[in-house]
Amino acid sequence: MNSNKYDKILLAHGGGGQLSDWLIRKIILPKISDSQTELADSASLELDSNDICFTTDSYVVKPLFFNGGDIGKLAVCGTINDLAVSGAIPVALSLSFIIETGLELATFERILESIGKTARQCNVRIVTGDTKTVEQGSADGIFINTAGIGCKIPGINLGTGNIRPGDKIIINGTIGDHGMTIMSQRQEMKFQSQLSSDCAGLSDLTVELLKNVPSIRFMRDPTRGGLAATLNEVAMQTRLSITINEDAVPVAPKVRAAAEMLGFDVLTIANEGKVVIVVAPENAQRCLEICRKNSLGKEAAIIGQIEQAADIAVVEMNTKIGGRRIVSMPYGRELPRIC
Amino acid sequence: MNSNKYDKILLAHGGGGQLSDWLIRKIILPKISDSQTELADSASLELDSNDICFTTDSYVVKPLFFNGGDIGKLAVCGTINDLAVSGAIPVALSLSFIIETGLELATFERILESIGKTARQCNVRIVTGDTKTVEQGSADGIFINTAGIGCKIPGINLGTGNIRPGDKIIINGTIGDHGMTIMSQRQEMKFQSQLSSDCAGLSDLTVELLKNVPSIRFMRDPTRGGLAATLNEVAMQTRLSITINEDAVPVAPKVRAAAEMLGFDVLTIANEGKVVIVVAPENAQRCLEICRKNSLGKEAAIIGQIEQAADIAVVEMNTKIGGRRIVSMPYGRELPRIC
Repeated sequence: MNSNKYDKILLAHGGGGQLSDWLIRKIILPKISDSQTELADSASLELDSNDICFTTDSYVVKPLFFNGGDIGKLAVCGTINDLAVSGAIPVALSLSFIIETGLELATFERILESIGKTARQCNVRIVTGDTKTVEQGSADGIFINTAGIGCKIPGINLGTGNIRPGDKIIINGTIGDHGMTIMSQRQEMKFQSQLSSDCAGLSDLTVELLKNVPSIRFMRDPTRGGLAATLNEVAMQTRLSITINEDAVPVAPKVRAAAEMLGFDVLTIANEGKVVIVVAPENAQRCLEICRKNSLGKEAAIIGQIEQAADIAVVEMNTKIGGRRIVSMPYGRELPRIC
Repeated sequence: MNSNKYDKILLAHGGGGQLSDWLIRKIILPKISDSQTELADSASLELDSNDICFTTDSYVVKPLFFNGGDIGKLAVCGTINDLAVSGAIPVALSLSFIIETGLELATFERILESIGKTARQCNVRIVTGDTKTVEQGSADGIFINTAGIGCKIPGINLGTGNIRPGDKIIINGTIGDHGMTIMSQRQEMKFQSQLSSDCAGLSDLTVELLKNVPSIRFMRDPTRGGLAATLNEVAMQTRLSITINEDAVPVAPKVRAAAEMLGFDVLTIANEGKVVIVVAPENAQRCLEICRKNSLGKEAAIIGQIEQAADIAVVEMNTKIGGRRIVSMPYGRELPRIC
């Protein structure tokens, strides 16, 4: 069969017959798998441990390609990060496509290359997958789902239940980069080319932190809903209050400018390469140093702390101009299809 | 927040804020989870074994509801079956939705109820999930992805590499029921109400078979591409030929009539509650008896056998009228969005 016959995805590429077989063997596998292993219906894995984390996310980001990443890189990093912040070492991913008929094969191949490259960089194997096709108009280009398995780092037990008043809150760098990159590209803003998503796999950093700082209480990647959603979830679950200092929260000037121009609160904007770390106060400095030495945390900062709640648990921010405001849970309509 | 405010899915239900939280806590979790466990970003699992199977499938079936099942039941059964035929006991599923804005909440709730019921029946836990929303026209109602983890049954090692000439091929019941049900509903054929999908989770049957018949070589669920695709895959991978007997292949009369009317070869039609079993000849009868005593295999039959390939490996069928024909690999365009 001549591969040149197909320059677009056809409905039959998802039909489970000869064309599906061609797409999997000739197009997908060579780009995402180093070995000759089949992308079987079910993968057999012998894990290092039976104490695992398991997670999934679907990706519907629009546009498919953006400064700093694409839907494929996002699909690998996002699932790796959910495992990483759970205290696990990511081991294996599944990869499932829903493709709109008519998608350019070249577009699909670019996405596959990005998936393969990101998985290799993050030292995670893609072991099983699925491809479905739908008619034109029934999806928007391509949607990707990844699920992931990670082995828990022995002795690590992260959770909001560990958090105590006085604990410090650290973030590994600037916030809002991913969301504002996507929004500025969608709105075709002038400075869009100067913004770049922070999309990155975080497990290198999280594993190093967890192996060196035993008193890390909790980690979470502030994706949809941004830092505001993550901090509010922590406050709700712990019934403890949080104060952050606006001065201390790293924001790139161009991201701040874009957020102001479009009327967004940067605290609610999605990140794809950030982790919020809650750590005992005596180890906050050590944690910060490890972050700053790692390429994933050069601009890390201690942004606030956990406090006894006076009445109900709230997240508050000391503003740059000396005020104090509530940081509330975003409503959810801020940024559709951001990941 | 008053749940009655929302009778349709909004874009903000996938935004990661208050409305996402409401959808997860008030609508999704109560229907799919027996316990009060959170559907966390990442689930922590302690498996019985570190020798596992891992699989994924996305479901785009159209229509969403059909006789004998719906997209939710299909999403649970399909992933359970991929684990079951790999020789594993299904343990945990992930569940991810891509929902088109405007989907009736009542429709989503019916699907969730079906997911919860099927998972409980199949004794598998849904432990992690994700919900994304996209604009009207960017998806077709709802797409579902499930990934699954199963623990391998000790001592079982299934694979086409085990298959030998003389081995018998068994199927646990009638073929084509799922695909012809979907097609007849789409075409609004008169007898559509008399057809019913075979959609079912097979792990009860496969576990019983594997624990009692040590010489089972290989199992596969003949979904997209039907029995024809599964047998051709076996022939290609083993370089052995296969002969099946048309007389022996169970087909419900109404399914045969529908396939003939619509011009389909029933061998290529998708099944969602069937398993093809290759077993050593001396144990074929025992295998058949176990199937027939199980509610999932009442109409099981020995349909053919594995043979030395003369030149190249082929799948052939002895027809009812005394002829012999090649059963070829379907091309893939037969039945779009069948699962």
